[in-house]
Amino acid sequence: MNILEIIYKKRFKKTLSPGEISFFVKNYAGGLIPDYQASALLMAIAVNGMTEDETVSLTESMAMEGKTLDYGGKGAIDKHSTGGVGDKVSLILVPLAASFGLKIPMISGRGLSFTGGTIDKLEGIPGFRTEYSAGELKMLLKKAGCFICGQSAELAPADRLIYDLRNSTSTVDVEPLGISSILSKKLAAGVRTLVMDIKVPDRAALPAKRKLAAAMKRVAARTGIKMTAYLTRMDDVLGYSAGNSLEVLETIEVLRGASPNTALDLALLFAERMLKEAGINKSRAAITENIKNGAALSKFRQMINAQGGDPKVIDDPSRLGISSDVLTVKSPSGGYLDIRDIKDLGLFNLMLGTGRKTLSDRVDPGTGFVMRKKKGECFRKGEPVADIFYRRKKHSPEALKKQFLAMLEFQARPLRITEPPVYGIV
Amino acid sequence: MNILEIIYKKRFKKTLSPGEISFFVKNYAGGLIPDYQASALLMAIAVNGMTEDETVSLTESMAMEGKTLDYGGKGAIDKHSTGGVGDKVSLILVPLAASFGLKIPMISGRGLSFTGGTIDKLEGIPGFRTEYSAGELKMLLKKAGCFICGQSAELAPADRLIYDLRNSTSTVDVEPLGISSILSKKLAAGVRTLVMDIKVPDRAALPAKRKLAAAMKRVAARTGIKMTAYLTRMDDVLGYSAGNSLEVLETIEVLRGASPNTALDLALLFAERMLKEAGINKSRAAITENIKNGAALSKFRQMINAQGGDPKVIDDPSRLGISSDVLTVKSPSGGYLDIRDIKDLGLFNLMLGTGRKTLSDRVDPGTGFVMRKKKGECFRKGEPVADIFYRRKKHSPEALKKQFLAMLEFQARPLRITEPPVYGIV
Repeated sequence: MNILEIIYKKRFKKTLSPGEISFFVKNYAGGLIPDYQASALLMAIAVNGMTEDETVSLTESMAMEGKTLDYGGKGAIDKHSTGGVGDKVSLILVPLAASFGLKIPMISGRGLSFTGGTIDKLEGIPGFRTEYSAGELKMLLKKAGCFICGQSAELAPADRLIYDLRNSTSTVDVEPLGISSILSKKLAAGVRTLVMDIKVPDRAALPAKRKLAAAMKRVAARTGIKMTAYLTRMDDVLGYSAGNSLEVLETIEVLRGASPNTALDLALLFAERMLKEAGINKSRAAITENIKNGAALSKFRQMINAQGGDPKVIDDPSRLGISSDVLTVKSPSGGYLDIRDIKDLGLFNLMLGTGRKTLSDRVDPGTGFVMRKKKGECFRKGEPVADIFYRRKKHSPEALKKQFLAMLEFQARPLRITEPPVYGIV
Repeated sequence: MNILEIIYKKRFKKTLSPGEISFFVKNYAGGLIPDYQASALLMAIAVNGMTEDETVSLTESMAMEGKTLDYGGKGAIDKHSTGGVGDKVSLILVPLAASFGLKIPMISGRGLSFTGGTIDKLEGIPGFRTEYSAGELKMLLKKAGCFICGQSAELAPADRLIYDLRNSTSTVDVEPLGISSILSKKLAAGVRTLVMDIKVPDRAALPAKRKLAAAMKRVAARTGIKMTAYLTRMDDVLGYSAGNSLEVLETIEVLRGASPNTALDLALLFAERMLKEAGINKSRAAITENIKNGAALSKFRQMINAQGGDPKVIDDPSRLGISSDVLTVKSPSGGYLDIRDIKDLGLFNLMLGTGRKTLSDRVDPGTGFVMRKKKGECFRKGEPVADIFYRRKKHSPEALKKQFLAMLEFQARPLRITEPPVYGIV
C-alpha cells in the first residue's frame, strides 16, 4: 500500500478501502506523508466525493489516531452547531442543562471566516483556560459538572492537521470531509449522543441541508453516535449581539432572565432534548425555572471558576474588555429592518477583529456589534439600529457606519417572515 | 487574485483566465505558493481538465518564467519522443541531420519509470557534460552545429518544479499538463519547428494517441511552434539494445553502417522531415549516404568532443563502462519470439539500474540488455535470445534469467505482425 496508489485511485473516483484510508490518516498524522500529497488526495475527494463507507472509515481512523476520552456509562451528551452569527447558544445551553445534573463535557472550536467560535468568546474572560490534557478534562468535569474546552492536541490530531490543510487548499466545504471532521472529534471526545444544530440560510438551501443532516446522521449511527439534527433558520443575528465578550455579556443577561431571545429559544429546545436523551424529562417551563431561580447562572459561575476564569465578570462586565469606542448607527429612513445576507454581518465582525481569516490570527475579544431590534421590526427615521464596538486606531467610524448600513434595508412594508425558527428535525 | 480562489474555481470545473494561470506559475516558481496548494490545483486540473485556451496559457506562462533562448532566423528545429524502450533515435538523428549543416540544439530529458532518458545515455561517455547555462548553449551550437543537453535550470524552471510535484502526486498522466510541460520547454529553448514522436503501444491505443497528437499540435501552433506528430508503433525494443552505454554503442554501430535497425529507420524518417522543414530536400538514399561516407559518425565525434566527452569511446567501446557481468539468456523452446508487454522490459531495465524511480536516483550507465533478434523472428531451442549486462553484486543471474524469460513468449506459429512501424502523421 502506498500513497501514490491511493491518490491515483481517488483521482479516478475509485472507492478507497478502510485500510487505505487508515494508512493515509496514520501516516499523514505521523509526518510520513507530506502536505502536498495529502492536499492532492483531499482535492480528489473534493471533486470525486466519498461513499458513506469511506466517510465512516475516515471518521473512525481520525478518531482513533490520538487519545480518546471515556466518561463511562452511556458516554457524553454534546451539542454542535455548524455556525451562525451571534451563535451563543452553547454558552447558555451548557450551564442550563448542567444545572439539572447533566454532565456536559463540551469540546468546541475556534472561529473561522464569518462564524464566531465558542472558545474565542470564553477567552475574553480574564484567566479563562480552554486548553487541557485528556487527564485534566476528566478532573474538570468532576469539578463543575460541565466544561467548554478547545480541541486538545491529543484528541483526533489528524483532524486538526487535515482541517488546517483544507483551509489552505479551498476544500473546507466538502461534505464528507466536514462530516468526518465533526464526528471524529466527537467520537474521540467520548460523545455518544449528539444534538446537531445545522444552520439553514434560507428555504432554497433546505433540501441540501436536509440531505447533509441525513448523511451525517447515518455516519454518526455507524460510528456509535446517536445524533439528532435540528435544521434551524439563520437569516438574522442569534439574540442581539455578535462579538466575543459582547456575547458573553448577553449570555449573562439571558441567564439572569432577559427575554425574549432567539438564542435562548434554541438553548431551551436543545436542553430539553439533551435532558430527555439522558432520561431526565423536563418541560420547557421547568427548564426555564432554572434560569429564574439563578441555578443556571450559578452553574455558569462555577464553570468559569473551574476553568480558571474570573467569575467577577458576571457582576462586573467592565472586566470583559469590551471596547469603549462605541458607534451608534441610526436608521437613515423609517421602515422594517431587513438583512441582505447574514454572512456579511459575520464578515463585518471579522473585519472588526472578532474572528480570524487564518488560524494563526489573534482575535479581539472586545469588538463586535449589538442590534437594538430583530429583523422585521420597525424603526423610525433616526432611531438607533445598532451599537458597534470597534477600535478607533484601526477603523474610522464614518466608514464603519456606511459599511454597516449597506448590509441592511429598511422596507416600507412589513416583511412577511413565514419561515419557522426550526425547519425540521432529522 | 489569490491562489485559494484559483483552486476553488478549478475544483468546480471553471475555466481559469490567462492572468490566473500566469499568477499561479509566477508565484509557485517564486516560492510564494507552497507545494500543498500547487498540488491541490494540479489534482483539480487532473480531474476536471483544462481547455485548450488554458493549456496555451499554461505553456506560455511556464516558458516565459525563466530565461529563453533565441537562435535567430526561423528558430531551432527539434525532435521529441514520448519515450520508448531502447529509444536511441535522437542519438542517431542529431549527428545525422547536423551532418547536412542543419543546426540542432536539442534539449532532452532524463529517464523516469520505464523509459530511458537521452541525457542519461550520453552521460555514460566519460567527461560528457549535459548541463550548460543559456549562454554556453549558444557557444556549443556554434562549435559543433548540434548538441544534446539537459534542461537548464534557467529555462522553464516552473515546469521542472511542477513536473517534480506531479511525479509525487499521481498526476503525471494528465494530458494538458503533459502537453504544456513538453511545449513550454521547447518554447523556452527557442524551438519553432518540432517533430514529435508519439509512441503507440498497440492499435487499441491509437484513437487516444491520435487525439493527443491533434490537441498538442493545436496548442503548439497557437504558441508559435510548427509541430508534426508521428504516431509510431512501440511493441518491441527500438533497434536491439536497451540501457545507457549499450545504446551509445549501438548508435556508433548504426552510424558505422549496421543495418537493418528500427531505430535507424525512424532516425532517417525524422531527418528527412527536419531537413525538409529547413528547406533542404534530401531523399532517404541521400541521407543514408552520410552514414556510408562517415559524415554522421564524424559529426557525432565532433559533438562528443564539444560537450567535453572522450571521443575515443567511438573506436574503443571498452571506455563506455559496460558491465562485464554478462548473462546470455537462451530460448527454452523453439518458436517465434513475442513480447507480452514492452513496458515490462523497460521496468526490467529500471531494476538493473539503467533508470530511476524518483528523480534523485543515480543511474548505472553499464547495465541493460541486447536482443539477438527482433519480435516475430524464429528461435531454435537453446539459441541465445538476449545478453543481459548486470551487476553480480546486486542480482543473481538465475533470478534475472527467470524474470527475463517470463516477459517473452515463443509461439509455435509465425506472428501476424500487420501493424506498420508508423501508424500515421498528424
